[in-house]
Amino acid sequence: MAQKRAVLAFSGGLDTSAVLTWMTRELDWEVVTFTANLGQRETDSLRVAEEKSRSLGAVAHESVDLRQELLEEYFLPALQLHAKLEGRYLLGTSLARYPTARAAMRVARRYDCNVLSHGSTGKGNDQVRFETTWLVLNADPSLHLEGMTIYAPWKEPDFLRRFGDGGRKVMRAYLEEQGVPVPSGGSDRPDPYSQDENMLHISSEGVALEKPEESHLGKVIYTRLTDPLQAPDQPEFARVHFAAGVPVRITVEDVQGRVTSDVSGGLVEVFAAANEVAGRHGAGLLDMVEHRYVGIKSRGVYEAPGHTLLLEAHTDLESIVHDGPVIDRKASEGPLVARLIYNGGWFSQEMRRYLSVLPEEQSRVSGWSLVRLYKGSALAVARSSANTLYDPAVASFDDMTGTGYDPMKARGFIDVQALHMYASEKARHRATGGHA
Amino acid sequence: MAQKRAVLAFSGGLDTSAVLTWMTRELDWEVVTFTANLGQRETDSLRVAEEKSRSLGAVAHESVDLRQELLEEYFLPALQLHAKLEGRYLLGTSLARYPTARAAMRVARRYDCNVLSHGSTGKGNDQVRFETTWLVLNADPSLHLEGMTIYAPWKEPDFLRRFGDGGRKVMRAYLEEQGVPVPSGGSDRPDPYSQDENMLHISSEGVALEKPEESHLGKVIYTRLTDPLQAPDQPEFARVHFAAGVPVRITVEDVQGRVTSDVSGGLVEVFAAANEVAGRHGAGLLDMVEHRYVGIKSRGVYEAPGHTLLLEAHTDLESIVHDGPVIDRKASEGPLVARLIYNGGWFSQEMRRYLSVLPEEQSRVSGWSLVRLYKGSALAVARSSANTLYDPAVASFDDMTGTGYDPMKARGFIDVQALHMYASEKARHRATGGHA
Amino acid sequence: MAQKRAVLAFSGGLDTSAVLTWMTRELDWEVVTFTANLGQRETDSLRVAEEKSRSLGAVAHESVDLRQELLEEYFLPALQLHAKLEGRYLLGTSLARYPTARAAMRVARRYDCNVLSHGSTGKGNDQVRFETTWLVLNADPSLHLEGMTIYAPWKEPDFLRRFGDGGRKVMRAYLEEQGVPVPSGGSDRPDPYSQDENMLHISSEGVALEKPEESHLGKVIYTRLTDPLQAPDQPEFARVHFAAGVPVRITVEDVQGRVTSDVSGGLVEVFAAANEVAGRHGAGLLDMVEHRYVGIKSRGVYEAPGHTLLLEAHTDLESIVHDGPVIDRKASEGPLVARLIYNGGWFSQEMRRYLSVLPEEQSRVSGWSLVRLYKGSALAVARSSANTLYDPAVASFDDMTGTGYDPMKARGFIDVQALHMYASEKARHRATGGHA
Amino acid sequence: MAQKRAVLAFSGGLDTSAVLTWMTRELDWEVVTFTANLGQRETDSLRVAEEKSRSLGAVAHESVDLRQELLEEYFLPALQLHAKLEGRYLLGTSLARYPTARAAMRVARRYDCNVLSHGSTGKGNDQVRFETTWLVLNADPSLHLEGMTIYAPWKEPDFLRRFGDGGRKVMRAYLEEQGVPVPSGGSDRPDPYSQDENMLHISSEGVALEKPEESHLGKVIYTRLTDPLQAPDQPEFARVHFAAGVPVRITVEDVQGRVTSDVSGGLVEVFAAANEVAGRHGAGLLDMVEHRYVGIKSRGVYEAPGHTLLLEAHTDLESIVHDGPVIDRKASEGPLVARLIYNGGWFSQEMRRYLSVLPEEQSRVSGWSLVRLYKGSALAVARSSANTLYDPAVASFDDMTGTGYDPMKARGFIDVQALHMYASEKARHRATGGHA
Repeated sequence: MAQKRAVLAFSGGLDTSAVLTWMTRELDWEVVTFTANLGQRETDSLRVAEEKSRSLGAVAHESVDLRQELLEEYFLPALQLHAKLEGRYLLGTSLARYPTARAAMRVARRYDCNVLSHGSTGKGNDQVRFETTWLVLNADPSLHLEGMTIYAPWKEPDFLRRFGDGGRKVMRAYLEEQGVPVPSGGSDRPDPYSQDENMLHISSEGVALEKPEESHLGKVIYTRLTDPLQAPDQPEFARVHFAAGVPVRITVEDVQGRVTSDVSGGLVEVFAAANEVAGRHGAGLLDMVEHRYVGIKSRGVYEAPGHTLLLEAHTDLESIVHDGPVIDRKASEGPLVARLIYNGGWFSQEMRRYLSVLPEEQSRVSGWSLVRLYKGSALAVARSSANTLYDPAVASFDDMTGTGYDPMKARGFIDVQALHMYASEKARHRATGGHA
Repeated sequence: MAQKRAVLAFSGGLDTSAVLTWMTRELDWEVVTFTANLGQRETDSLRVAEEKSRSLGAVAHESVDLRQELLEEYFLPALQLHAKLEGRYLLGTSLARYPTARAAMRVARRYDCNVLSHGSTGKGNDQVRFETTWLVLNADPSLHLEGMTIYAPWKEPDFLRRFGDGGRKVMRAYLEEQGVPVPSGGSDRPDPYSQDENMLHISSEGVALEKPEESHLGKVIYTRLTDPLQAPDQPEFARVHFAAGVPVRITVEDVQGRVTSDVSGGLVEVFAAANEVAGRHGAGLLDMVEHRYVGIKSRGVYEAPGHTLLLEAHTDLESIVHDGPVIDRKASEGPLVARLIYNGGWFSQEMRRYLSVLPEEQSRVSGWSLVRLYKGSALAVARSSANTLYDPAVASFDDMTGTGYDPMKARGFIDVQALHMYASEKARHRATGGHA
Repeated sequence: MAQKRAVLAFSGGLDTSAVLTWMTRELDWEVVTFTANLGQRETDSLRVAEEKSRSLGAVAHESVDLRQELLEEYFLPALQLHAKLEGRYLLGTSLARYPTARAAMRVARRYDCNVLSHGSTGKGNDQVRFETTWLVLNADPSLHLEGMTIYAPWKEPDFLRRFGDGGRKVMRAYLEEQGVPVPSGGSDRPDPYSQDENMLHISSEGVALEKPEESHLGKVIYTRLTDPLQAPDQPEFARVHFAAGVPVRITVEDVQGRVTSDVSGGLVEVFAAANEVAGRHGAGLLDMVEHRYVGIKSRGVYEAPGHTLLLEAHTDLESIVHDGPVIDRKASEGPLVARLIYNGGWFSQEMRRYLSVLPEEQSRVSGWSLVRLYKGSALAVARSSANTLYDPAVASFDDMTGTGYDPMKARGFIDVQALHMYASEKARHRATGGHA
Repeated sequence: MAQKRAVLAFSGGLDTSAVLTWMTRELDWEVVTFTANLGQRETDSLRVAEEKSRSLGAVAHESVDLRQELLEEYFLPALQLHAKLEGRYLLGTSLARYPTARAAMRVARRYDCNVLSHGSTGKGNDQVRFETTWLVLNADPSLHLEGMTIYAPWKEPDFLRRFGDGGRKVMRAYLEEQGVPVPSGGSDRPDPYSQDENMLHISSEGVALEKPEESHLGKVIYTRLTDPLQAPDQPEFARVHFAAGVPVRITVEDVQGRVTSDVSGGLVEVFAAANEVAGRHGAGLLDMVEHRYVGIKSRGVYEAPGHTLLLEAHTDLESIVHDGPVIDRKASEGPLVARLIYNGGWFSQEMRRYLSVLPEEQSRVSGWSLVRLYKGSALAVARSSANTLYDPAVASFDDMTGTGYDPMKARGFIDVQALHMYASEKARHRATGGHA
């Protein structure tokens, strides 16, 4: 049998170091690693990962910058669709899996690999997102891998026998046994929780957070945002400008209305500015239990300052440019879109259908919303758009027909719209003889 | 023609004083007034209203306590259905109109009135809610008024000719001309905004708030909640206990975990406790533009501390007792229910259908959620229920069949659920010759 | 005051003759009439209408062919969105009102009119569709009428006083009194029902049909379709070909599979062919009670053979080119879109949002469906598409990863997808002590 | 290891005979068989199955009558919820799996079995429904099996190795080799299609039907209904009476209105009468491609005469007793409920939520609908209810307030409801400079 040649997303941490070593030494596969820059704060880790990768036997390593792809292709539609899982979670981890999974396929093609692998566990959502994306996009001729297989060690009996029970301690021992330098700074004590980070957010879950009846306060050390209790005593105001649904500029104003910062440009720059100002004030914190696709309830703590600010502003701006029924339909569909994204279904017909409404719908969403950031909250307090439907002149009936407003119109409106309810109520009491 | 005999909801303020005087003196009707106790803060106004009413010629006056009815029959289902208009507004005004409208019918029957009247304007939502309720419930034999008519002065030509243009100044002049003591403390300057208040919230709108591009900050004086910027520097924690979906107890804990308050009992008591603690910390503030049923965009500022706290807690508790698909359907239906309530449709078949799911669904919602209140935010940080679906033991596949968890199960799950998306993607590329 | 100049949609029948005479002689307005060709069967009436119009004092008359506009701009999206009111009615009348209303505005601009008028009653849906379209599109600069007013005689006190009670007899007397030739062939007896006809369908309602507990059979004389009981004893098969969602060709085959007719071309031709073959076999008959926008239940009998055939074929073809979740969402949204169309809301943001999904979604809908027409039924029995998702090869797991199908995959799939239901059931029984 | 003791649903046909023999002789398990009476036409097969079962080594056999359970607990709610998969399929197979699966658990408890087994294939929906039901209901203490495992031979490597490729020929050879009498009447030729039958319907799929582009006509021999082309030349009329949503009586009338049959009683009797009369006229035939839960498109031909008649009647009756918004919501939710039932999710919280609306909602659904049955079609032509909302008197505005109907009411209604659309259109053209 021909030797396997695999792609592995590699962070350089303990877990992926053990997986990589296992693949190169036990399985004797050729492994190409890549590290995705998704806007994590510590990006010098990118360089470290490359060195580490080669030392563990990878035949090649790539560092790929996915920040723009993440923001433009995944974050932006999710923002515009007001996708909040269970009405709460902004999907920072879910969204980041798609560009990473696609990148793995591009790397695989470049290096002629036939195995796609990831280090996610067998009980989580990430495995679903990675593998679904790979399985589905393998139907795309521009990404297709001949004879593609997926290697997910945490679902493989051999790997599980070796590492399944012992956790980090066993991995460390394994690396030492293999003469591999163990990542510094760690200890055998399990981390208090596991984290996933990218530009959009950082999530914390597991171990110390596994009891939902215990508050995360005092357990989680926030890294994407200031603890609200430590946030500045003075609020700031972020004026978020949108052009056709895209955040294009953020000005930050102090309580006196002085502009202290003004960032415009591409999504990467604007999003960074949103993270900066909202993070400074501790906005975007969430502690919730969610329903995983694999059917398990799971508890997570999320820090998503920039996304929270932009969603508050976008929702607020849409309130003046969208008609009521459109706002209602969006609010009703948002949770369904969110579940689809969360479940790994981005590259589905269903998602494509949701996406297809955006160009027309978002063309109206230009203007700004002013959001006050203060001690953990992001509150819209003003908004403006050239496309506003809020217009005292329009609100008069005058303008429609030139016949002038006549209060009898409301009289007629109310009577007519109430008629069917009256008929129902009448029938109901007729049916029950007035006893219901 | 027989003299008209009307019921009028009467607050004792300038507006309803002018309306009442108009009805008794110009129309020469017999008017029965009533004042509803909906939990406004200043309840000695109830006594004042009675005196005023008689002095303006009312033939009778009633003071009715609607707090329990408001909370149990309207607020509670709205809470359980997670009704938020446009994903934001908690419907404090809308909910309060229903018990008031019903009370007017009961008063009308007691005093043998045939006219129902209200002082709401002809461009707003309240007229719709009052009149729809009256029209619909007139089909209820226990509330039916023989020959019922509705008198809404702000939609009547004569009244509009007299008062339509001049506003409060003209009303004041009219009352003076009639020798009626003008309500004290006012001036000819228009109020900076109009307010509506009940236990659930206070709303501010109009005049100084009419420009949505101008922040309400510094214009609105908060009365239901502390300005978040002035709120205590230490957070407090509210542990909200529910029994079958009903908030039955709130304990307040300080940062050291000491219980500083513990209120249990009926909804009136528990809701008051929620208002107290959440209001102290400035939670429940909203500045938004909404789509009125009559088709006009309107801007309001809302203060709803207790409702905000209880909704955060209820949503959070439901996250552990409801299955994912139920949570998603509730999140998707919430905006539709909210619009129905907002539009005056409580006594519709459609609403009855929404309400009919609650007994079964809410039977599971017992337990508590712990919410941190701090400087304008209400953030759930822990939750517990005897009915929780979060259960590490359940989460193992072991428990289902006794065959033990096998990671291949996730493998099969992922492949099978991805199959249809793969087929779609394959067909798409086949159709486009790989160029899409 | 300057003389009014009005546009009136004019059929030449008794009703619009009376309205036109009233407008020209009693109101002394200048009236421009137009007759819309919407594909009614008797189109020589178009010429008659013109002569009549001038003789009744119209200053000008236009005959406008709206068939293509009706089919391409309104019918086609309604077909593609599977719009069926209350799951049943295909909206033939509703759809036709939009092009007629727009045509009235174009005529009004051409002849410098400032009044738009129609002859629909004050209790129906058509008034809503006409007037809503006019009010909304008056905001379109290319259709805007300066100082536009709407004249709806059946909502005008003067007109109602003259004609409100007497019906056709009074109208006939009025026309005779005015020396106007009364439309031939009529009698003073009320018609047994009123009808509305265009290419899409003919509706019958009112008078003899007003009792929903009495069958329409024997009362309605079908004109768009053969009575199913009189239809041919041999079925025929219509093979309906679609290109990107548009029906472009219909071949009719007999039971031996011989092609007896083959029509392709524009929508007008293809729709006519659909009407022809489906009408011959009596398909597309409906007797239903519907909920009118004005809140009244109303009973109608509809004959829509072509639309019925095309919808059966389109739905059937979509079953092989759309993924399951897309089919489900379309089935779920169809009734909501239908209500919006029925209620006069075509030119709304909400409708624009529904329409915006079509280009992408319908791009896949190419191929054909074979429908058997027989004695009142239209039943799809075969279908084919180059974009089909039905593909035995795809259905094997082999194709996805090259690892071959393993029945354990279904095992894993089932266990994982059942897990959350198991957890819920477990919690439910724990809560009830096993007694629920 | 202790010997396994399994329950197997056993029909006595070739397939389950092979499975049973395999289980008793190769696996050496104790097997208890049961045969479910779900209203198949040939019920003497029940006795045959028992004899056969014992001869193949089953330790016990039960015959269970599930007809009433099927109709009352599963069919009836599905009818009332208007569940039609993809708007078309009435779910006859899906519904029947639930009572069968539950019965297996009751048998298992009675005979102290710890293995539940079924003979469904590994690519279909039935495996999901059986196993999901077992996994979920194992959480019900009254059905719980200690140490329950599931044995699905068509997902087992050993069994597949033996029978996977050869089909019926191999099974026959195996049975002969085992000295077991092979079921009579069969041949080695594969059946032209496989069928599943119960009271609700018969489905045909596979083999000769696998090409959706080939009509099923001439391939499928109908057994539940008369070929529409062979149906009587005279229509009949079924008057279906409902009491609180339950069909309780069917009278059949000929074209002269003479009652030729009158059946009332429990659901089993009434459903049989519906099957009888609708089947005679060939109503309820469907040829469709559906999206299976496992992601595969599959083609089936369904005969469901009784269900089709009852659904037409129920939908038609609801049109007069339900308010428009309720009808719309039901039409919108129907496809979602259907998917849930189809996917095996009956015993979920989500389903429980759907079911919980029925008692209140269906309490109004009393009365009858008259359905014409003729040559393959079932068409409602009349309907009546004491709870009807169709009421000329109610339809007048008079009745609501006593002020009399004023056509200006429609004027006001139209203007007010159009206002928001006008504002949107105005803003749209303002935004595009009138060029859109």
